[in-house]
Order: sequence, then structure tokens, then C-alpha cells
Amino acid sequence: MLAPQSRTARDAALHAVADALSARTDEILAANVQDVARARATGTPEAVVDRLTLTAERVAAIASDVRDVVALPDPVGEVVRGRTLPNGLDLRQVRVPLGVVGIIYEARPNVTVDAAALCLKSGNAVLLRGSSSAYASNTALVGVLRDALHEAGLPADCVQLVPGEGRESATELMRARGLVDVLIPRGGASLIRSVVEQSTVPVIETGVGNCHVYVDASADLDMAVDVLVNSKAQRPSVCNAAETVLVHADVAEAFLPRALDALAAAGVTVHGDASWQRADARVVPATVEDWGTEYLSYDIAAAVVPDLEAAVAHIREWTSGHTEAIVSRDAAAARRFTALVDSTAVMVNASTRFTDGGQFGFGAEIGISTQKLHARGPMGLPELTATKYVVTGDGHTRD
Amino acid sequence: MLAPQSRTARDAALHAVADALSARTDEILAANVQDVARARATGTPEAVVDRLTLTAERVAAIASDVRDVVALPDPVGEVVRGRTLPNGLDLRQVRVPLGVVGIIYEARPNVTVDAAALCLKSGNAVLLRGSSSAYASNTALVGVLRDALHEAGLPADCVQLVPGEGRESATELMRARGLVDVLIPRGGASLIRSVVEQSTVPVIETGVGNCHVYVDASADLDMAVDVLVNSKAQRPSVCNAAETVLVHADVAEAFLPRALDALAAAGVTVHGDASWQRADARVVPATVEDWGTEYLSYDIAAAVVPDLEAAVAHIREWTSGHTEAIVSRDAAAARRFTALVDSTAVMVNASTRFTDGGQFGFGAEIGISTQKLHARGPMGLPELTATKYVVTGDGHTRD
Repeated sequence: MLAPQSRTARDAALHAVADALSARTDEILAANVQDVARARATGTPEAVVDRLTLTAERVAAIASDVRDVVALPDPVGEVVRGRTLPNGLDLRQVRVPLGVVGIIYEARPNVTVDAAALCLKSGNAVLLRGSSSAYASNTALVGVLRDALHEAGLPADCVQLVPGEGRESATELMRARGLVDVLIPRGGASLIRSVVEQSTVPVIETGVGNCHVYVDASADLDMAVDVLVNSKAQRPSVCNAAETVLVHADVAEAFLPRALDALAAAGVTVHGDASWQRADARVVPATVEDWGTEYLSYDIAAAVVPDLEAAVAHIREWTSGHTEAIVSRDAAAARRFTALVDSTAVMVNASTRFTDGGQFGFGAEIGISTQKLHARGPMGLPELTATKYVVTGDGHTRD
Repeated sequence: MLAPQSRTARDAALHAVADALSARTDEILAANVQDVARARATGTPEAVVDRLTLTAERVAAIASDVRDVVALPDPVGEVVRGRTLPNGLDLRQVRVPLGVVGIIYEARPNVTVDAAALCLKSGNAVLLRGSSSAYASNTALVGVLRDALHEAGLPADCVQLVPGEGRESATELMRARGLVDVLIPRGGASLIRSVVEQSTVPVIETGVGNCHVYVDASADLDMAVDVLVNSKAQRPSVCNAAETVLVHADVAEAFLPRALDALAAAGVTVHGDASWQRADARVVPATVEDWGTEYLSYDIAAAVVPDLEAAVAHIREWTSGHTEAIVSRDAAAARRFTALVDSTAVMVNASTRFTDGGQFGFGAEIGISTQKLHARGPMGLPELTATKYVVTGDGHTRD
């Protein structure tokens, strides 16, 4: 636990980390070359190799992100609630670090530094368990981090890479109840599912997004096309991209052709129900599997629904609880949709792509929680803290 | 999920519950007589039989507690955060019900109604799994609750007693991930440990309290005696009662005799280290086991420590993380203690017994969380909610 370290000490250490990343870029790139060569040799897809690859520019960007984190407001010490009780006791609920945060994540080595910076800024120690494909890069990056912390006067062990490249190291991390306060998996659906199922350490589920756009009977159809195409195609590989569009039957005839043209122009394949299939020969017939699929690609499932309640019922059955959007000019319909849909974020006349810590003004995020306990939605620095009560009296006793 | 039920409907239903408890008291008492007779027949200790027993007065008190819950502020719909983003999007983070709350609890049948009322008030459905020793009483109480809800126009299934008296019913509840949003065990340490270990549903750990009182070198010794005796003996059977006293060596000679007399007068047996043993023949030698014991009785472990840091080290090693108190006139020592001790509540010159939802002004509590995620300390109605983001735009899309 870093609680007794002052904000000044933590911020100075993070500045030292940023400086060290710049100064030791060559060393980091040399390690990364090994990972990249190994990935290419084992036939890793070029897109994955690209995410794994570091360049001088990327390391500079990582260092710059660390400086941005330093500049964020410190959550530790924030008084969340406070009052003087009738008996004169002063009650304060104060944010404190969680303690030790474990992160299990996939290929991108930038997550190593990003997650460590957020944890350190919020006063936590962090255990990092990255992908074995990035092991050399992560080892180099964590080495740089630890040296910089040590030189800045913080314990180097505030940041640790879980040793070993095999499955056992992840399993050990998941079983370290009492030693690790929370585990945050960052990556694909199967990684997250496996952590949730195996961990005895409390887990914050992140990131699986089967997001929906519902086009209401009263929608401005130009706006609906814009929101739909942006939700699906602006960056299809991320969790807040839309995967299904639901259209009110009253506007299907007017909307479907326009949506299909716009989606086709954006390179999107539509997997549609019978109504969508009738509207256009380009539509691939949807199977029941499509409703539950997080494509993360230029594909979208599409259905026509008789009314808003049917859209809500479809969403409740299939959503991963990440983000759903309604496009509607009807204030009552928007209110009803936001009340009935219980997802992390509900958008009214806005793209699903806005569910993001940066977009929400949090400055940075460690992930997007799709669970209900502790944190729900983009997790910034306050979500990396717990609270404790400090109660001050003059010898108060209970009757 | 009860989210779409208005506060008016939920409050009316809770008033109907209170009325029905009064009107059907005879029926409840008749069921309770069966449980009590069975408990006596199986040789249950009289203290446990007393906690199991209902009387007309006790049922009236339970109904009155329900009316108190109705009068509390509704947490659902509270806007926790809200701002207009630079791009004009309106961002609101709003409290919503958790969904389905499971409660696993021991003998007292009043918990059945108390927990149901708090869950209903906060818009949740509740699954109750009480002790098999109270099964007839709980069945009667839940029958009354369900009838009242139904008559008030709410789904009776908002409150359900998990059927069956055996272990399997608890196990099924613990494995209902995806159906139950959170599980709250209320009871002894072994119940809580078994739920934490077996549950795949997220659990909120409650109530184990190995609480410490530290008497600093600068303590007002009269105050220290008062705080110590109150922390230990005002009600020893509860989780916020003190179980260990640590005394700074500089005041041991002056404090120990006075503390020993006061504790003896309150009927408390001291299990002390060598210093305490030297101070008084009545002191029972403490073994290492005593430091980790939650006595819940008129017993206390006692040690002398060389300084505040040693007290903190002892607490960090042995505490269950519930409540620790310092008695000190030295503001710097108090600040250091509150910074270094990472428990749910840290008391300065006040009894550990104040860690309580009622004392903190929350109106009611469903338990005292000793974990870090989601809720820490006494859990009132807001702790029975999650949040979601509602984001409203005018067709906003991301660049």
C-alpha cells in the first residue's frame, strides 16, 4: 500500500518514470524487436503484430500519457461525505487506495505503463500480468519503471511484473485472495470470462460490448443514419462500437434503404432479419447467434421491432450491458428507454462510441466496467480507490 | 428489477407490508412457536432461542422499523455526477437498483423483514435464505410480505424465500451468477467465510470485527479507560466491540492498573502479554491465538507496545479491517494513526462501538462491509444501488 506516500512523492516518481521512458527508449525498442520477431515467426496476424510493435514515437506517446496522468486530480484524500453527528462526533468518509491492484491484459505493451501510471497516481501498488507475446517488452518497460521509482525514493515493488510466461502465473494471481485487493482483466471476451470464473480475488469485469442502436418511430432519420454509422463504423474493433440495430416498424420502410446505403458505403455487412432481407439483396440472413455476437468488425445484426418495448425486450435478452442508444424526437420515448434499459450507459441521440473515460472527461481510464458493483462504466482514478471512515470525538462513548 | 416502479408505488407497498405484519401477528407467532419448540427440543442454547423468539411486541417493532425505512430518502434516481461535456453532450450518472439481492443470514427472523424492506425501498428484488431453525417463522413472514406486495400492486416475486431447509438451497443461491447481482451474508465468521469461498455471485463481506483500541503515550487516561471499557463491554457480542487493547509503553505503568480495575468491574477477563501479566494476577497469559480472536464475549487481548508504529504493525497483522481506535491528545499522532491504519473505520478519541449505520445517521443498515470494493463500512440504502450513465445529445457522433 502506498497510502502514506504524499501526492508530491507519487507525482515526482511518475515524472521520473516519464523521463526514464524517454531516456531508455533504445533499450525498450531492442526488447520489443525480440517480441515482434517471435510473433512474426509464429505466424501472428499482421494487425496483432502492429499492436505489439513499439517505435520511438509510440514510446514518446506512452511517456506523454504518463505526464497527462500526473496532471489529473489526485483521488486519494478526497472527502466523499462528511458531517458532524448530533452527538458532536465528526464523521468523514475519505478516499484511500485500494491497495494492490492486479491487471491481466493482452498484447499491447503500452497497457503496462498506462495501467501502472494510473495505479501509482491513485496510491496503489500494481501487479502486471501481460501477454506472453509481449514478455520481453513488458520486462524492459517494468524494469525502467522500477528503476525510476527507486531513484525517486518510492519502493520499486510498487510495480511488479508477474514472473513467467505460462498460464500458471495468471492462475496464481487469480488465487491470491487477501494479497491482491482487486483484479482487472483487460482484453477479449474469453480472457475476461476465464478470469471471472477462476478468480477468488474480487474482479472488476470490463469491456465486453454487445451494444445496440434503437431507431424509434419518432427518430430524425438523418440523425439516425449518422448515429448508427458512427456507432458501428467509426472504429469497429472497440467495445463501445454498435453490434445490433433495431428499427421501429413504423419507420422501417423509410429508414432501411437509407441505412443500408450508408452502412454499405462504410463497408459494413448487415446480418438482417426477414424485414431487412426484403429491403435489400445485400443483407445476409441473421441467425439467432447474430443477436449475441460482439463482431468487433464491419458487421452488424439488424432487426425490425413492433415498438419500443420490443426493442427493450430484445436488448434485455441479448445485451452485455455496455451501451445502448436510442434515436428519437419523442421525449417520453427517450425517458422510457433510459428507464427500462439497465446498461452501463444509455445514449439518447448520441453515438454509442461516447462511452469512454476520455470522452466523459475523466482524463484517463483503466477500463470500462460492465458490472454493477463498485464501478460501472469508464473507470478513472476515483474508481481505483476505496473509502474509509475517520471519526473524531472527545472521548465519545455509546450509551 | 423494480426500477420502473415509482417511489410512490414502492412506499405504498412498504406501508401495506407494515400494516399486514400488524394485522397478521397471530399467524406469525403461531409459526414462530413451531421453530421455538423445535429449537428447545434440540437443546439450542437459551440465548439463541431468545433471538429466535417473536412476541407481539417484537412483531410490532418490526412493523415500526418498516415504516422508518419508508421514511428514508429514496436513493434511486439520485444524480451522483453530472456535467455538460465540451461537445454539448449532457452526462448524468444516476443511481439505479442493483437488481436482485441475495441475503444469507442466521437465526433472527426480524432480519427477514428488515432486509426485504431495505431492498424494496432501494428498488431491488430480494432472495432470502434464512436459517433452517427459523424456517417456519420466515415462511410466515415472507407469506405476509408477498401478499401485501401483491395487494399493493407490486409483483409478489420481488420477495422470495429460497425454498428448502437444507444446505443445497444456499449453495444454489451462491452459484446463481447472472441471476443474482450480489450476495450479502449476515452472520458469524464461519458463515461469511463459507459464502466468500463458495460463491460465484459477487459477495459483499460483512461483519467480522477484530477491533483494536490503542492508548497512545499522550492519551488522557481517564478518557482512555472510558473508551476502552465502552468499546469492549457496552455490548460485547457485536462486530464493532473491541477485542484487543494496545498500550504505549510510556503510559503502561499508569494506565494498566486503572484499566484492569475498570475492565474487572465490567466483568471483562484480560488475556495479556508479559507486561499486563506483571501488572495484575487476574491477567490470563495471552497466546498468539488471542491476537486473532474475535471473542464476542467479556474477554479482551492486551499488549504493551513500544510506540505508535508498533501498534500499527500489530493492527495490520491481526485486524479483520473493521474498526480501530486511538486515544491520544497529540494531533500528529492521531493523524499518523488514521493515515497508517487502513480499516473500514478509524476512531480518534471515540469508542469502536460507533461504527454503525444508525450511529452514522444512515437511518438503517443492511450490514457492515469489511471489504474494499463497492461499499466499505455501514451499508445504508445508497450502498444497495448501482449507477448508470445517461448521456443525451442532438445526434452527436465521434470524429
